[in-house]
Amino acid sequence: MSATERTYNFSAGPAVLPLPVLKKAQEELLCLPGAGASVMEISHRSKQFEPIISGAETNIRKVLNIPDNYTVLFLQGGALLQFAMIPMNILVGTGKKADYIITGSWTKKAHSEAKLVGDVNVIYDGKDHGYRRKPSAAEAKINADAAYAYICLNETIEGVQYQTVPDTGDVPLVADASSEIFSRPIDVSRFGILYACAQKNAGPAGVTVVIIRNDLLERSGEKVPSLLNYKKLAENKSMLNTPPTFAVYMVKLVTDWLLNDIGGLDKMYAINKEKAALLYEVIDNSNGFYKGHADKEFRSLMNVPFRLPSEELDKKFQDEAKTVGLATLGGHRSVGGLRASIYNAMPRDGVVALRDFMLDFAKKSG
Amino acid sequence: MSATERTYNFSAGPAVLPLPVLKKAQEELLCLPGAGASVMEISHRSKQFEPIISGAETNIRKVLNIPDNYTVLFLQGGALLQFAMIPMNILVGTGKKADYIITGSWTKKAHSEAKLVGDVNVIYDGKDHGYRRKPSAAEAKINADAAYAYICLNETIEGVQYQTVPDTGDVPLVADASSEIFSRPIDVSRFGILYACAQKNAGPAGVTVVIIRNDLLERSGEKVPSLLNYKKLAENKSMLNTPPTFAVYMVKLVTDWLLNDIGGLDKMYAINKEKAALLYEVIDNSNGFYKGHADKEFRSLMNVPFRLPSEELDKKFQDEAKTVGLATLGGHRSVGGLRASIYNAMPRDGVVALRDFMLDFAKKSG
Repeated sequence: MSATERTYNFSAGPAVLPLPVLKKAQEELLCLPGAGASVMEISHRSKQFEPIISGAETNIRKVLNIPDNYTVLFLQGGALLQFAMIPMNILVGTGKKADYIITGSWTKKAHSEAKLVGDVNVIYDGKDHGYRRKPSAAEAKINADAAYAYICLNETIEGVQYQTVPDTGDVPLVADASSEIFSRPIDVSRFGILYACAQKNAGPAGVTVVIIRNDLLERSGEKVPSLLNYKKLAENKSMLNTPPTFAVYMVKLVTDWLLNDIGGLDKMYAINKEKAALLYEVIDNSNGFYKGHADKEFRSLMNVPFRLPSEELDKKFQDEAKTVGLATLGGHRSVGGLRASIYNAMPRDGVVALRDFMLDFAKKSG
Repeated sequence: MSATERTYNFSAGPAVLPLPVLKKAQEELLCLPGAGASVMEISHRSKQFEPIISGAETNIRKVLNIPDNYTVLFLQGGALLQFAMIPMNILVGTGKKADYIITGSWTKKAHSEAKLVGDVNVIYDGKDHGYRRKPSAAEAKINADAAYAYICLNETIEGVQYQTVPDTGDVPLVADASSEIFSRPIDVSRFGILYACAQKNAGPAGVTVVIIRNDLLERSGEKVPSLLNYKKLAENKSMLNTPPTFAVYMVKLVTDWLLNDIGGLDKMYAINKEKAALLYEVIDNSNGFYKGHADKEFRSLMNVPFRLPSEELDKKFQDEAKTVGLATLGGHRSVGGLRASIYNAMPRDGVVALRDFMLDFAKKSG
């Protein structure tokens, strides 16, 4: 392989981007047409940037069919900053507690950050079964007076995904959708806050999309610093200061691609289901050579963590895969094993190539 | 002009980037050599990204000659988030107050954010003279028991710059260097914290460079959320979560350019002084047709705000300039008038073109 040949990149994030998006960004990098400068060089308040950020918002509203009583924000700091901003804004001052449902690494981390800020309950923790599934409504009972209930729709590290959105009644549901946003149709009206850092399915690292029901904006206290204050951010359309303009531009291009090249979320979902099935089928038919992490009914369409019979084989698999252009298949450093992240932008051909490699490798080593 | 022709872009930020940097980024956009993917698509913990973030740090340490007892962080949220993070980390819990020296729009804003977080004093406010200069030591007396003293080295909107770093004795000096970092040599050992959002002289919007003296890291309280906690960020080398990888990559390229193409800060400073002099000379010799904002001895090398005899002429100047490829010369929306930002990456030819246009315009209209 030459130094500039692209591989199939199964990174969990920052992750593969659609090639047409990268090509468009490359073409416009020195000069955004009509702007006389790169998109990186122009004011966020310029007439050239305004249609980019408002276009990204329009695209997101269209893709997710977002009701009018929701605000879309483009923020910085990734999911980790949301872990703190959520309780700073919608817990502190309510006199209530928030309910956390821990289903893997990212909800665990979200809870530990929220604890620094306010009063939080853990109403479910799946550690006893190694975070292989999501709880039933009976296992994770929401307190009727909770300020909000917190979940992660798809645990990126464990590859465990909610197949249906839990019903939290009148308690606002707050969900981290970082590694699954735009991968399937979802009913936004079921959420108080739905948010995602971009670097899996929405764009590059450096921007986080936060979709918030407008009534929750009223909970932001006056003492919350401006850039952490949902209400002030909403009033200023994410422009209290300079937003991460290039990252927002990339989100605009990615959502353009999703709408125009793919044709929306129903189509994207069908493609994603088929891609994931290619890998899970190999795992299920391998007579235990490949072991998936998640229980079958909670398997993620986006992240497929699996193990081989030994750590040596895990390593051999990863090394050999790399030599044939299948890259970044290592599991998260906290859990080891292997993981194939097959986000929207991973082409079917890449998944087929991995499937074929898995079949060959099992035959050779099994 | 064609839609893809670059203009001379005098934007105050996001601002002009060095053309060789943009070309390099364009060349590598689809595939970072050896990575098999775009720099936007690879893990922040990959062996391809590690030399980028550590290389950016090494470059910054070299360019600014940073002493070993300082940590360099790459954060998100721009200066506005630093306005809050500074008091959250190094004021709260000290039982002290912080001293703010208000010399323009950005220190005013920094103070109003800090007030939300902790106890702050205004020890000087230049509003009576319209923020045209910096105070003397006698005018801005630092309290010996202050937690820190806060300044902005260069007020971007007013174009007013400290020519020498104020002496604050044992009180840590915290300085916003957003619109002047890398424009001139500076003695970092004089500061407790020196920080800059990137989108003027260091890269694109979306990353902020924070240089902090290590003893101050010990002030960060345990309750400060992780992504807002200098100590935790330092312990994790800015990698508590995914940093804004593309923006960090651009900072690496910009500092490569500064070191290799320009030859360091002494050379950059000489170039910047000469560029600024070209414009100030026209202003001074215009018999009052052009009026600069700042008092002469506090004039900024980076931002040159000025006015013509009427708002109509301001507008005419801006409109005509645009037709000859001199773009984004409007003053900040809060103050009006005109402003030429002539950051490191603005080529001398651009400043000469503006100088010539100013001379012609004055002759024609004056």
